[in-house]
Formats: sequence, structure tokens, C-alpha cells
Amino acid sequence: MQKKSKEQEQKPKSQEGLTVKKEENFSEWYNQVVQKAELADYSDVKGFMVIRPNAYSIWEAIQSYLDKRIKLLGVRNAYFPLLIPESFFKREAEHAQGFTPEVAWIANKNDQEHGKTERLAIRPTSETIIYDSYSKWIRSWRDLPLRINQWCNVVRWETRATRLFLRTREFLWQEGHCVYSSKGECDKETLQFLEEYKKMCKEILAIPVLAGRKTDNEKFSGALYTLSIEGIMPDGKALQLGTSHNLGQGFAKSFNISFLDKNGKSGVPWQNSWGVSTRLIGAVAMAHGDDRGLILPPKVAYNKVVVIPLLFKGKEEKVLAKAKEISKELESFNPILDDRDNTPGWKFSEHELKGIPIRIEIGPKDIEKRQVTIVRRDTGKKLEIKEAGIKKEVENLLNDIQDSLFKKAKKSFDEKITQVKDMPELKRAITSQKVALAFFCESSKCEEDIKEKTDGAKAINMPLEKMKKQGKCVVCNKKVTEVVYIGKSY
Amino acid sequence: MQKKSKEQEQKPKSQEGLTVKKEENFSEWYNQVVQKAELADYSDVKGFMVIRPNAYSIWEAIQSYLDKRIKLLGVRNAYFPLLIPESFFKREAEHAQGFTPEVAWIANKNDQEHGKTERLAIRPTSETIIYDSYSKWIRSWRDLPLRINQWCNVVRWETRATRLFLRTREFLWQEGHCVYSSKGECDKETLQFLEEYKKMCKEILAIPVLAGRKTDNEKFSGALYTLSIEGIMPDGKALQLGTSHNLGQGFAKSFNISFLDKNGKSGVPWQNSWGVSTRLIGAVAMAHGDDRGLILPPKVAYNKVVVIPLLFKGKEEKVLAKAKEISKELESFNPILDDRDNTPGWKFSEHELKGIPIRIEIGPKDIEKRQVTIVRRDTGKKLEIKEAGIKKEVENLLNDIQDSLFKKAKKSFDEKITQVKDMPELKRAITSQKVALAFFCESSKCEEDIKEKTDGAKAINMPLEKMKKQGKCVVCNKKVTEVVYIGKSY
Repeated sequence: MQKKSKEQEQKPKSQEGLTVKKEENFSEWYNQVVQKAELADYSDVKGFMVIRPNAYSIWEAIQSYLDKRIKLLGVRNAYFPLLIPESFFKREAEHAQGFTPEVAWIANKNDQEHGKTERLAIRPTSETIIYDSYSKWIRSWRDLPLRINQWCNVVRWETRATRLFLRTREFLWQEGHCVYSSKGECDKETLQFLEEYKKMCKEILAIPVLAGRKTDNEKFSGALYTLSIEGIMPDGKALQLGTSHNLGQGFAKSFNISFLDKNGKSGVPWQNSWGVSTRLIGAVAMAHGDDRGLILPPKVAYNKVVVIPLLFKGKEEKVLAKAKEISKELESFNPILDDRDNTPGWKFSEHELKGIPIRIEIGPKDIEKRQVTIVRRDTGKKLEIKEAGIKKEVENLLNDIQDSLFKKAKKSFDEKITQVKDMPELKRAITSQKVALAFFCESSKCEEDIKEKTDGAKAINMPLEKMKKQGKCVVCNKKVTEVVYIGKSY
Repeated sequence: MQKKSKEQEQKPKSQEGLTVKKEENFSEWYNQVVQKAELADYSDVKGFMVIRPNAYSIWEAIQSYLDKRIKLLGVRNAYFPLLIPESFFKREAEHAQGFTPEVAWIANKNDQEHGKTERLAIRPTSETIIYDSYSKWIRSWRDLPLRINQWCNVVRWETRATRLFLRTREFLWQEGHCVYSSKGECDKETLQFLEEYKKMCKEILAIPVLAGRKTDNEKFSGALYTLSIEGIMPDGKALQLGTSHNLGQGFAKSFNISFLDKNGKSGVPWQNSWGVSTRLIGAVAMAHGDDRGLILPPKVAYNKVVVIPLLFKGKEEKVLAKAKEISKELESFNPILDDRDNTPGWKFSEHELKGIPIRIEIGPKDIEKRQVTIVRRDTGKKLEIKEAGIKKEVENLLNDIQDSLFKKAKKSFDEKITQVKDMPELKRAITSQKVALAFFCESSKCEEDIKEKTDGAKAINMPLEKMKKQGKCVVCNKKVTEVVYIGKSY
């Protein structure tokens, strides 16, 4: 048995508060905020994490928003097996090469009952197992487009150090897999899903992103091209938050997916795949948090309000009754009524650490004045609000907090992007923790040069629209219209 | 490349229809209905299945209903690692013994980075990995009750033949894991979660169940006792549909979970775990389907209505316009507007096979009369309904279908249960595909005797309320008040 002292018992872990400032040691601040706000915990299995309720509810908000959107676009959910036979992996050569090092294989069970002995992999992504099914389901143009998504876990055996949410050996995600009869349709929807991701980041996570195309070097193994959205974190590093791949016809050919068109001729379809993961939760913590802890955008906060009765001696019953009444009135915001026997200050710190958007304090004086005291988590601003009409007031405040968080994040985002003309400017930008926007010829040689000369910064993505005027590639001076974002990244 | 003939192309798999009758060959009927209604498909990996959109949407309806209920009861969702270290498994002896044969271990990756080399298992259930975290999180009575649930996949390497949804090596489920400071609280909620399951089966799946306690022989490995709900399928076999285990203090002791009570004294908490799985989807198919295919209870049907325009020559535009108008009006029921260029008969069969609750036919004559023709999937009954007020009419019909399906299932359920007094009666009951209710002393010896003498029927569960009068154990004649349901089972 673990021994616990009385003192420990009265001081929950989360109450210890953050011991570093976000500006001073961002990396350590992140580790502390994620664990102390009870978003995630390290698991006893190295590289794996526990997603605690405070974080899982953010994931549920993302799921709820995104699932509705993708269903409106004609996508339906399904579920494919966790385990993938080795032979499937090998069929698409680039794909196999890209993923094999990260694959966990099963030891004691294999697929030998089929008359073959084959190793089974835990899915690092599901293209191969899904497209095997598609080859059985798709017969004619009537079956297209086929649009399926799955919400699931994947395992990729990362050897680099774990960062909770950002880099773990298992994570949760959704992976959409669509099949079209033409390249045009595939291109269009590959972009459309990326735009949905961008919109989601803005509307519920309050995070602005760079939307663009990955360079050939950075694209998904087996894709024709990869589109991505990338956040810029407070330390100036880019964080890839979602991808949408046009897979071309490569997988279709490898998996014998074909369809008869309206004239009875056999054709090879076009495919895309697209995904976002629980990494988004890490981005929310990084983007908005402060030295007191997490700041949750109201749209992803499970409890949008905490009601704290100020229990002055002799007035307890009256104050508590009022606090209950107010909580009931604000039911639709899923309020916490914190009537535990700790001091108000203790409770304030606790809920600030956890990032609850609005705190409502109710004391005897408030009751006399038929008002409550409201404190915004994002600005710390105190307001006295009349009891009558409190629901509407809270709703407006939550909307305002949501908007303010995006505006603040967008300002910081814009300040972190700087246009550069040549290598010295690029180096200065990277040294000062900025993301550089530069003309770029997209040659592998120049891309390698960038990495070498900037101490590891790389091409983040290339904006989808070309520039109107030509400029010189930041490395080789070739005249081009394409530009690229360059920066350090997670 | 697979070759496909023109004929194949015009005849989707699902259109082949069922080739056996439910009464004549129930097992084959089930296999066909599950595959032809596109609920599930076998995977290339033996024992694993693909849950197709038509079935996954049933799972989503279950999730949506149950998730709301369990949140109301104070449970929050979280996510714990897929992989479990071998040492965790071994800590609770009975549990380890129960699950080890079914565990898939990882081959090429292990937990050696911790300074130990340890095998990792894919979770067959998550008690051990979750309770390791609980031992870190629980310090005092303030942390209790702790109620967490996770929606996830689990792998159990079944060696028996696969039945889609009923017995596969991977399935989806929810597993709730709660910790309480007292046995009383734990007992109460263990029962409460079982009652939630029973209610869900009735309210959305339209399936009546036997709720009771498993005998000691049949309880969960490591539990104090197990409560279960069991459906009775049309072939008279019981199908376990959900369990709620009171785990006692065994896991808490094995995982060093302790808490300081209000007096500062250390105590060992009580735990329960409870789950339902995608097996429920199989139960829905079995319980309600007929010789034409699936019959979906409206509350779990993704598309509750299909609108079929009868496109007589020269009237196509007018009919199609009306069909669109009606579909728009019925938007909240997520209708399919089937305007494909197949014959109406072809479409009728297709949607009957897939179990869509209501079919609406619209032809030129209907338009003249300002009406539509409605066909109920459950009874096949045709109704002519005035266009005005169609939404309300459809809503009423859907409610009626939902109720009728439960009533019909309940009638069949009641007919399948028969009280027996002695072994000859028990044998006759089992031979005639019934579930027997018998007095039972709960000795292992008598339980074994039942299996032997009935060719494998077993104790399903024991009703939670004892009988008012004593009776004689069906095997040993000992006087008891307990009764047990006995039957063949899946």
C-alpha cells in the first residue's frame, strides 16, 4: 500500500499550480499544464498516454462538430479491423516503406488458419485494410463516390521522446477514405475536407492555421500530394494539425479496385484520405493557456461555468440555495457547483488551472443586490451582473470569450509570420522563432539546403494560391511564383 | 484486375435477396441477412470483421442514447492505452487466468526502455491498465466516487468459429469503471447500470431481456458477482447482451488503490465494471428480421424513411419534383430519395432487405389525389396518407412501429420461457428450444449436472428477486427459494 499523509490528502496534485511561466520555459509549462489540469497522464507503458476526462471531453466536442459536418458531405462512419496482414502492407511500395519501421507486430497469433502464415500488424493507418474491402464493394459507377470515415486508435512506434498529445505511440483520430470516378472530383473534395478542418480549428478550437500543400519530400507515403493545416505554437514551431491526401490511383491499382463506367468500360478510380487526431487537444492547451493554467475555448469546454458559493458563517444555507438556483438556471452550460469545504481562493486556482471559461461567485452581498460576480478566465476581468437575465448574459460572454481567443491567437499567429527574401533573412527569422514565407523552387536540393542552413527548420507547407508576381527562390534564386512556409516544427 | 460482367454490374450483391427462410435455417438466415443488408463483412484476417455503415449507424444510435444516460449518472469518458504490460495482468490471479489464453501479445516492441523487458498485451478488457492509473489518482474520500467510462476496441483471440457481431476476435464496446468508498454504494450502482442496459434494450432496440445474476461458475474472472442481461433469440438460445460486475475489493488490493476517509483512516475502496458491445447489433438483426431481410427499430435506423418516385413515362419531372418536396418535408427522418434508374420492384426489395422502417411511394395518381402511399416494413401494411400533415403521420407511424416491434418481441420472448419442476421437464424444455425457469441450489455439482443432462444447456442467470415460496432444486431436490434460467446459449 502507498502511504499518504494527511497533508497530501488535503492538497490535490492539481492544486500545486504551475511552477514555471509560459514565456520562460514553454516546454516545461506545457508538460505541467497538461498533467496538472488533468488532461493526460503518462502510462506505465512507455510512449503511451492516458487521456483523462478533461481532455477526452475536448475530443468529444471535436468529434461532435466534425462528425456532423462530414455526414452533411455524404460521408458515413464504419469500422475496419485493428490488425492488418503483412501482405497488404507490402502492396503499395512507398506506403510500406514509410510505415514499416513504426509498426508493432503480433507475436503469438497470426493468420495461419487461412492456409498461410502471415504476420499481423497493429494499424498505423488503415488505407490497406480498407482498400481491400473497397475492392470487393466497388463494381460500377453506381457505387461511386464511396465516402467512409472511421474514428479509431492507431499505433506508431515512435522512437523520439513522448510529448503528451503531440507525439505518443498510440493516438485517437478519424480517417476518412473516399473513392471517386474522376481526378477532378477527388481533387475538389481533398481540398474540401482540408477546408473543413481549417474551419473547425477556427470555429471551435479558436486556432488559426496555415493551409497548404506539403512538398514532395514531406507528403504522405503513397500519396500523389498531401494538403495540410498547421498551427504556429507560441514557441514559433509549426504543429501539423490535419492532413488531406489525394492518393491518386496508386492504391486502387495495388488493391485491384476498378469500376465499370456508364458505357460498361472498366476504369481505375481516384482516392483520398484525410485525418485529424487527439493532437488537436495539445494544440488547444498550447495556444490559449497562461501562467495560471489552461484556458478553454467555450465551444470545447465540458463545463462552461463554475459557480462558487462564498459561504460566510451563518449565511451558508441562503448562499448555497442561491448558488443552486443559479446553477439550475444555467443548466445548459453544464455548470459545476463547487460546494466543497475548501477556501474560495483554493477553488479559484483549481478552476483557473483547468481553464473553465466563466467563474460565478455568489456571496451574501451579491444576494442582497440581486446580482452575481462573474470572472472571465481569459482576461480575468470581473463583472457584476444582475440575476435577472443572467442566462443571456452568460451566453453573450461565452461567445465573446470564444471570439476574443481567436482574435488573440490570430494576432500572435500573424506576428509570427515574416516574409524573407534571401538566406540571411531566413536564418534571422528562424533564430527569432518566426515562420518565414519565401519564394521556393520546390527542388529537393533546395529543400535540403534549407534544413542544413537553418539548423533543422523545414518546409511546412506551400500556400495553395501562387503569387501574382515572380520572385527568387530563397536558396537558388531561380525565378518562381510558388512560395513556402519555413519553420521549426514539432 | 477482377473481371466484372455487365450483368454483375446491374445486380448488386444485396439484390440477390435471402435464399433461406428464417424459420427453416436460422443460422444461415442470420449470416445472409448480416452480409446482404451490408451490416458487416468478413475481413481477410480470420476472425475479424468489417462493421459497415449500415451497422455502424446502429452502434452510433446506441452510443448516443447510452452516453447521455451514463453522463447523467455522473460518469465521464476517458481513454486508456491499448497495450497492457504482462505484470499488470498477473496481479489479479483469477483475472489473469481467465483472460490469458485469449490474449494477443506484441512481438517486436516491448517495454524494455523502463529498465525491464516486459511483454505487452492488446487489451481484452481494461481493468488492469485503468486501475493502475486509479491507484495514482485516488487519495481521499474527496476523490470518490470516481466514475469513468471508455468507448474502445478490444481483442480476444476466440478459437471457436466466428459469427459476425456475436463472436469475433475484435469488437467495439464501452467499459465503465467506478470506484466507491462503500460496498452499499457499489452494489447499488452495479445494479443501476444493469437497469440502464435493460432499459436501453427495451426503449431503442425493442428487445426484452432476462436481467439477473450469473452463477459463480459463470461470473467475470476476478469479480465478486456478475449481473447480466440476456436476450432470447428466435432459435431459443440465450445471447448475453450486457454485464455489470461488482468487483469487490480484489482489484483495489492488487493495484494498491486506497483512500483516506473523513477521519484520516486508510480504507480499501469497492469497484465495479460494466459493458455492452457491438454484439447488440447482431441481436437487433436476429430479433426483428424476417424472410425479406432486416427490420430496424426506427430509433436505431439511420434512414427512417425511403421515398420512391414511380417514374411513369412523361410524368417523370412532376413525380420527381413531388418526391423531392416530400423528402424535404421529412428531412428530420433522414430520408433516402431513391431516384436511381432501377425498377420500383427492385428498389422495394433493396430497402426491405436493409430494413428501412417506412417506404413512401409517389406516383402520378398519388399526386392527383394529393396523397402518398406508405408501406410499413414491419407489417407490410399499405396506407394512403394525405400530403397535408404527412410529417406528423410519419412520426406517429414510426412510434407505432417501434412499439409494435417490442410487443412482438416480448410475446415471442414470453412464449420461450417455461417453468420446469424436474429434470425430465427441463430436458423437454431444452429439446423444444425453450428457456427453462427452475428452482436451483446454486451448487457447482448441480450446475455441472444440468450441462451434462441437457446436452450443453447452462445456467443463464438467476433472477434478482427470490421466489416467495420454496421449491425443490431441479437437480438435487434441495429446498431453496432461488431460481435460475437454463438454456442453450451463444
